[in-house]
Amino acid sequence: MSEIEELIKEINKFRDDRDWRQFHNPKDLAISLSIEAAELLEDFQWKSSHAAVETNMENIKEEIADVMIYCLMITSDLGLDTKQLIREKLEKNAKKYPVEQS
Amino acid sequence: MSEIEELIKEINKFRDDRDWRQFHNPKDLAISLSIEAAELLEDFQWKSSHAAVETNMENIKEEIADVMIYCLMITSDLGLDTKQLIREKLEKNAKKYPVEQS
Amino acid sequence: MSEIEELIKEINKFRDDRDWRQFHNPKDLAISLSIEAAELLEDFQWKSSHAAVETNMENIKEEIADVMIYCLMITSDLGLDTKQLIREKLEKNAKKYPVEQS
Amino acid sequence: MSEIEELIKEINKFRDDRDWRQFHNPKDLAISLSIEAAELLEDFQWKSSHAAVETNMENIKEEIADVMIYCLMITSDLGLDTKQLIREKLEKNAKKYPVEQS
Repeated sequence: MSEIEELIKEINKFRDDRDWRQFHNPKDLAISLSIEAAELLEDFQWKSSHAAVETNMENIKEEIADVMIYCLMITSDLGLDTKQLIREKLEKNAKKYPVEQS
Repeated sequence: MSEIEELIKEINKFRDDRDWRQFHNPKDLAISLSIEAAELLEDFQWKSSHAAVETNMENIKEEIADVMIYCLMITSDLGLDTKQLIREKLEKNAKKYPVEQS
Repeated sequence: MSEIEELIKEINKFRDDRDWRQFHNPKDLAISLSIEAAELLEDFQWKSSHAAVETNMENIKEEIADVMIYCLMITSDLGLDTKQLIREKLEKNAKKYPVEQS
Repeated sequence: MSEIEELIKEINKFRDDRDWRQFHNPKDLAISLSIEAAELLEDFQWKSSHAAVETNMENIKEEIADVMIYCLMITSDLGLDTKQLIREKLEKNAKKYPVEQS
């Protein structure tokens, strides 16, 4: 089992232990992901990037983890291969933004 | 090299090839992550979860990839261990939401 | 009729003319508001505040208008008095952040 | 003085009393607006629209007020006419979505 598959397995165990999968349709997961992304942004509110990292590192770590956990729940529930998704998007971006134009 | 480290290496090569790392302070990456999370949410706008997945699967895949790419950029730039972050957050959540109370 | 009530009347005429009110439950309006807020933020992506205003003023105006239109739809649909809401929140904030502590 | 101008005057007095205007560049205001929009969305997290309104009405009112206060700060700081912005956007939307096509 790959590293990402292992993480997904742990995340799915977490929600199955609590019988939470019944609430987890993709739309409500996307709402939660958006809320967590804003909580990450809140660590940078009224601050320079540098000051935010100095002050809020512990919380930044938690919010990034929350965002990634929701991403992995969605990819798992939709039967997607996370690693492949990321590689395909990088390839698409590489065509959209050719190196020679940067 | 682990699977996630491999992905981070590919993402970092992508931005180094384009000399983009100079723009990528954590605050601006968190802003971009929040924008991509909203673009994922847009796939579900005015739709039921089921209808959105039926209609917008290709775009949903791309937006989740974008969100994950920004997460991996931030963890890489802050010198964080992505897998450990996720595991620590799951442990913290497990204490906050004990199985017996669900 | 007050100025804000006039605007709400025009907004409601706009959606009634298109028979859109049937889709406008508060949850989906809150989703759309969040998406529009991110589109406003996109005008500032990878830019200083000053450069964004110089470059994207026309779009900034449109995105703020979109956010306000969704706010007014929600207050209208929930039977709320927009002006009173704002004044009550300012009073609450004034107690939370006393002038002498600033 | 119009109703919206009166509200803007009260909001500006609030921040001037606290000497907060120095932090309020449009980019950081747009970040805050996005965070408040997500806090409104949080009132609807894991809930139907109806249940959220039943349960969280008081908080929904506060979050909408916060979003509108940030909108009015931005329009004030950029020297924009809020009412005109909204009317121009409604006119643009009316052309984009003609009544006969709905």
